[in-house]
Amino acid sequence: MCSSSWQNFGQTILFRRGGLFFKRYFRPLSCPTLLSSTVERKEKYAICPPQVFSGIQPTGIPHIGNYVGAIRNWLKLQKKYQRVILSIVDLHSITTPQNPERLRENIFDMTACLIACGVDLQRCILFQQSSVSQHAELAWILGCMCTLPRLQQLPQFKQKSDKLKDVGVGLFTYPILQAADILLYKSTLIPVGKDQLQHIELARHLARTFNRTTEVLFPNPIEMIGHIPKIQSLRNPANKMSKSEENTLGRIDLTDSPDNIREKVKKAKTDFTSRVTYDPDNRPGVANLIKIHEALTGDTPEDICEDALLLDTARYKLKLAEIIIEKLKPIRENYIQLKSDRGYLKTVLEAGQLKAIQIAEATFSEVKKAIGLT
Amino acid sequence: MCSSSWQNFGQTILFRRGGLFFKRYFRPLSCPTLLSSTVERKEKYAICPPQVFSGIQPTGIPHIGNYVGAIRNWLKLQKKYQRVILSIVDLHSITTPQNPERLRENIFDMTACLIACGVDLQRCILFQQSSVSQHAELAWILGCMCTLPRLQQLPQFKQKSDKLKDVGVGLFTYPILQAADILLYKSTLIPVGKDQLQHIELARHLARTFNRTTEVLFPNPIEMIGHIPKIQSLRNPANKMSKSEENTLGRIDLTDSPDNIREKVKKAKTDFTSRVTYDPDNRPGVANLIKIHEALTGDTPEDICEDALLLDTARYKLKLAEIIIEKLKPIRENYIQLKSDRGYLKTVLEAGQLKAIQIAEATFSEVKKAIGLT
Repeated sequence: MCSSSWQNFGQTILFRRGGLFFKRYFRPLSCPTLLSSTVERKEKYAICPPQVFSGIQPTGIPHIGNYVGAIRNWLKLQKKYQRVILSIVDLHSITTPQNPERLRENIFDMTACLIACGVDLQRCILFQQSSVSQHAELAWILGCMCTLPRLQQLPQFKQKSDKLKDVGVGLFTYPILQAADILLYKSTLIPVGKDQLQHIELARHLARTFNRTTEVLFPNPIEMIGHIPKIQSLRNPANKMSKSEENTLGRIDLTDSPDNIREKVKKAKTDFTSRVTYDPDNRPGVANLIKIHEALTGDTPEDICEDALLLDTARYKLKLAEIIIEKLKPIRENYIQLKSDRGYLKTVLEAGQLKAIQIAEATFSEVKKAIGLT
Repeated sequence: MCSSSWQNFGQTILFRRGGLFFKRYFRPLSCPTLLSSTVERKEKYAICPPQVFSGIQPTGIPHIGNYVGAIRNWLKLQKKYQRVILSIVDLHSITTPQNPERLRENIFDMTACLIACGVDLQRCILFQQSSVSQHAELAWILGCMCTLPRLQQLPQFKQKSDKLKDVGVGLFTYPILQAADILLYKSTLIPVGKDQLQHIELARHLARTFNRTTEVLFPNPIEMIGHIPKIQSLRNPANKMSKSEENTLGRIDLTDSPDNIREKVKKAKTDFTSRVTYDPDNRPGVANLIKIHEALTGDTPEDICEDALLLDTARYKLKLAEIIIEKLKPIRENYIQLKSDRGYLKTVLEAGQLKAIQIAEATFSEVKKAIGLT
């Protein structure tokens, strides 16, 4: 579950330590956004301008799976929408045990990486969640409007309820914090993975509950489910590329050095067939490399295989490594420069905090008034 | 459970509406404070100066049961200790549905009543919980350090777990907010009723957990269980005097008019014996009147009965009514004056907020640093 709170770049360490492993829940595709909007058409929602919100857990340097899966999507959205808010959701990350030193560093790493990737600070509000107190405050209020069974019935919770031994309360209630993240900015467009649909549904439910029982303050938050390339581990193509994989050869981080990238691609698990063909079922390792290639260049698997007709997989790997190196080069260079200037990163987060607080304070002040706290 | 979150002056309406009723839990007396301190002697706690903290839910005008049970105790404590913090815990009150208008008014009513009763604003910090964001913020962090089973195992929760149908998540997690209330001010002395022992135990546990896993920041909060007179309903002496009793004849509010008080005492349920004797088991109604008498004057039941030798219960009631009127007169007068000056009450709460924030910010800044958020 922890790995499903916002864009969590693979923080599943707790579960593996405890000898437990929880799979992500995917809501059946028969419940798409349009259906839910239709059903809820009669509900009262506030009319608000388009507002994109997304959260990213500070779990260190993102890998290329994160880049093509989430970050690149935000870069598109910031061009399309006037208001895009990206929050480094550190309050979500502490729902699993964290090393304080590491967490502190991860927050700056993520900030640097996002800017290095192209997050435009003129167009986006990039800020650290815990620096805006209203997230926790609104979460408390929404928690008082959410019934226990509703939270317990979230499939992720249901799947695990037998095994919940040492799991923190935060790991149970985090979907409420996620709803607060969204509603605090009166967000309407929420880019998320399919595993997050139930949580957006909860945010929608809490918006409705609030609007119905007090005052119509919140718009209807709608999930944006894009086509997200599914990048698997280089060492174990059956699993998703993940920060939590102990073998670092399984993933390519955005800031890996060229030598590192060459080594990792070279050692990527393939098979004993030397031709480069795209057959995800029977040749998952090679297919995964082609998917990375596709995700980075936009070429189709067919084109990629055609271009590699004269290459064996070993030589194709060398070619792919150079493509990855080339693509990541500006990110890496930007990152190194940004990371060396802690003062600048602090300024960025502080500026983001001020902008976020301005919106958060306005909403929360309305909330407090509506429920009688002021 | 809702009625057990801090000093809740009888807000149990939700349960009665839902057709459910939950009794308060009393921890066996075999677990007194000293025992728990002994057991925990080896734990690391921060050494902090004595600091009294108590929370009061804004549930309207307190009645004499609240006065002799809690408020009067705070008046004593403020003379004895340099730092006494009293919080009007509105974030706790919203764990059950509230009418916004009523809640807003209740907050001012409670503020006015407490000052009218004698809360000394020079010696106490009196403030509204929701005006200090760090309560909700620290609650989130502590929630991440509290396991679900620990919360579920609180007897109050266990007793109700079958019936938890429409109960909000806030009603499940409020003991964590209560722990945050206490720890935010590094409080060491917590005046509470016996039904709160488990919650102070949880606060202690969370202080230990935080100190052990990050940095030793929190002292050991110890509950102060005083002798609290148990005042029953005038109409139904089997039950506690309570705001939630529909028949307002059952309780005497601190601001009742003399005529009101006379009427309520006159109509208090007694029995067909005309003598005034103290026999709680067989004559609960009369005994309850004597207990109120004792609580307000300090006279023993024996003295009271002796003085009433020549009176029948009807005439004793008249005598008691005048005693109550006399005792409540200054409170009522102060209250009426204070309540007419909304501006002053706002100033009081703002001043309290500033003082509370000063402490809360300092603690929370240490907390954020210790866990890696800053």
